[in-house]
Amino acid sequence: MQDIRVKVDSGSYLITQNLNDLKSFAKQKSKVLLICDSNTKQHALTIQNDLNCESLLEVLSPGEDTKSFTSIVYLLEKYSSQLNRASGVVLVGGGMIGDLGALFSSLLFRGIDFYMVPTTLLSMVDSSIGGKTAVNLKTGKNLAGVFSSPKGVFINFNFLKTLPWIELLSGYGELIKSALIDSEAFYQKALNLDLKGYFESKEVSDEFSTLVYKAMLLKKNVVQEDPFEKGLRKVLNLGHTMSHAIESYYKYKIPHGVCVFYGLFLEGALGKHLGYVDSNYPLEVLDKFRQLGLDEFDGKWRDLESWLKVDKKNFDATIQFAFLKKPGVLYDLQKISTSVQLEKVFEKEEIFS
Amino acid sequence: MQDIRVKVDSGSYLITQNLNDLKSFAKQKSKVLLICDSNTKQHALTIQNDLNCESLLEVLSPGEDTKSFTSIVYLLEKYSSQLNRASGVVLVGGGMIGDLGALFSSLLFRGIDFYMVPTTLLSMVDSSIGGKTAVNLKTGKNLAGVFSSPKGVFINFNFLKTLPWIELLSGYGELIKSALIDSEAFYQKALNLDLKGYFESKEVSDEFSTLVYKAMLLKKNVVQEDPFEKGLRKVLNLGHTMSHAIESYYKYKIPHGVCVFYGLFLEGALGKHLGYVDSNYPLEVLDKFRQLGLDEFDGKWRDLESWLKVDKKNFDATIQFAFLKKPGVLYDLQKISTSVQLEKVFEKEEIFS
Repeated sequence: MQDIRVKVDSGSYLITQNLNDLKSFAKQKSKVLLICDSNTKQHALTIQNDLNCESLLEVLSPGEDTKSFTSIVYLLEKYSSQLNRASGVVLVGGGMIGDLGALFSSLLFRGIDFYMVPTTLLSMVDSSIGGKTAVNLKTGKNLAGVFSSPKGVFINFNFLKTLPWIELLSGYGELIKSALIDSEAFYQKALNLDLKGYFESKEVSDEFSTLVYKAMLLKKNVVQEDPFEKGLRKVLNLGHTMSHAIESYYKYKIPHGVCVFYGLFLEGALGKHLGYVDSNYPLEVLDKFRQLGLDEFDGKWRDLESWLKVDKKNFDATIQFAFLKKPGVLYDLQKISTSVQLEKVFEKEEIFS
Repeated sequence: MQDIRVKVDSGSYLITQNLNDLKSFAKQKSKVLLICDSNTKQHALTIQNDLNCESLLEVLSPGEDTKSFTSIVYLLEKYSSQLNRASGVVLVGGGMIGDLGALFSSLLFRGIDFYMVPTTLLSMVDSSIGGKTAVNLKTGKNLAGVFSSPKGVFINFNFLKTLPWIELLSGYGELIKSALIDSEAFYQKALNLDLKGYFESKEVSDEFSTLVYKAMLLKKNVVQEDPFEKGLRKVLNLGHTMSHAIESYYKYKIPHGVCVFYGLFLEGALGKHLGYVDSNYPLEVLDKFRQLGLDEFDGKWRDLESWLKVDKKNFDATIQFAFLKKPGVLYDLQKISTSVQLEKVFEKEEIFS
């Protein structure tokens, strides 16, 4: 995999499989704090050993419940007296550790440098790129955060070997999303990826790593064009308006990317019903979702209404969706996000079944 | 007073006495949330009436205790369901409301627009300019925050009429700091300002408003040159290393600018002792402090040690100070902040008396 250079306001950073970039980050710091959860502690210890510098290790509880201001305040109170502005933070984990740890780093002393080590497929293809930090509020997921870029992202496919099947599927959901946004060709390849084969063999095929690389590249290109989500970047929310509502409904017990996977079908079906989508991809995505043994939403659609309303992208009585005409082609390139009146969303229960 | 245009990464904004700038900010927003405390509620109601748009009013408790993550989470949970990304926030109050409200605005949905209406002399000359947002931690003051700029700052000298004497003195401390950094001439004018005359007459003289304007201009020029405090901006911390320690020692019961006022003397005296400062300004500042009836630090100097250590500017065993050779002249323009070994700071108790 080639290095990817991401340009940001303050310069640029690398997404790389070369550990030396992280090593030189650590070398410039007076002290390094590694943050992980109990699932990724082993990986963090490996990194800590490789870095061989003055360091601290913080092991948090895994799961979305940890992604809260309670954790932020705990970390800030604890490390404000153990670190200083010349310290660095290394985040070893999935999206929860990345989002939370990056927000903590951005708040401590009004920002100290941090480096991302994504250990899940989901965080590799999505959350580690783009500078979004976040915690959840009682009122919804990711409602608080800032934009803040890491000093680098270290990719090690070996970390995926210990990933449970459901977490692999979660990353796959975001991979399909990126593929759908990119092109018909990428979408077809993503849909036909032999994920079970990988899970059984633990061998990252060239095909698999190429798809991950393409997803990272797509995300990089989009966020570089529109870092603060004023326009184009909203396309990355494909499937996410529905997925956020479903996640909230299930109290975050279902992995994010699995909800996105289903959200791609749901929003696609809605788009077809409204005449925006002119492709068979929604049903193909649903078929794949079922094929992989995943469980569909078992509530009433109307139950999602209150969660759709609180989504931070929504303005007043309309709900924002990014619709694709077909893979690789936005329905409305000018507007990107299309507003749908809330009553239109649940007009016909049967469009989702 | 002329408008001051502040350039920031995302464009620029105005510091202005013209209410139309705030009015046009509000007009562009779907809804406006005004945040104030019970001391500034009357001013907020006046502004709310002037704006005449769809709005909400949040009245917080006054005082440093409110500047915490407890308040941030309260505001985020409450307003994440009542506002959206097209909403705006107007902050009517002193430094506490400004620092807290700007951090809240910067975190909600990863940042919604906010506008500052400083109602104290301190916030006019200092905290409303420069994009620093903050809350206090148990471990120290302003240890958490982000850099984030307002869309404008509205200055109305009438708000100062209701300001208690001690709050006026607090602003005066920061005014003297700005004057010291700027030049001998500005420093002399600031030192000779008839503050009591203003407090009795409530008439803002041309002389007074000119000094406020010059202080805002100095701050603007410094932060524009160095928005993220990588170098030059550290000069604005003149007097602040000591003042933060004193504030922490007294559990924030003494207004910030009063501590800065005394900190200017303390750091000046330390600088003289160490041979950095070659001017009589430290004693002049102390004389003025006493003349105005303010109480000096009544603890032991060593009691400040633990608070000096936690200051977020400090790297390891040294304490950072910005020293002036004399008014308007930095001791070390290359380094700006000069490191002093902690044991050197309290070498001789008598240098501070």
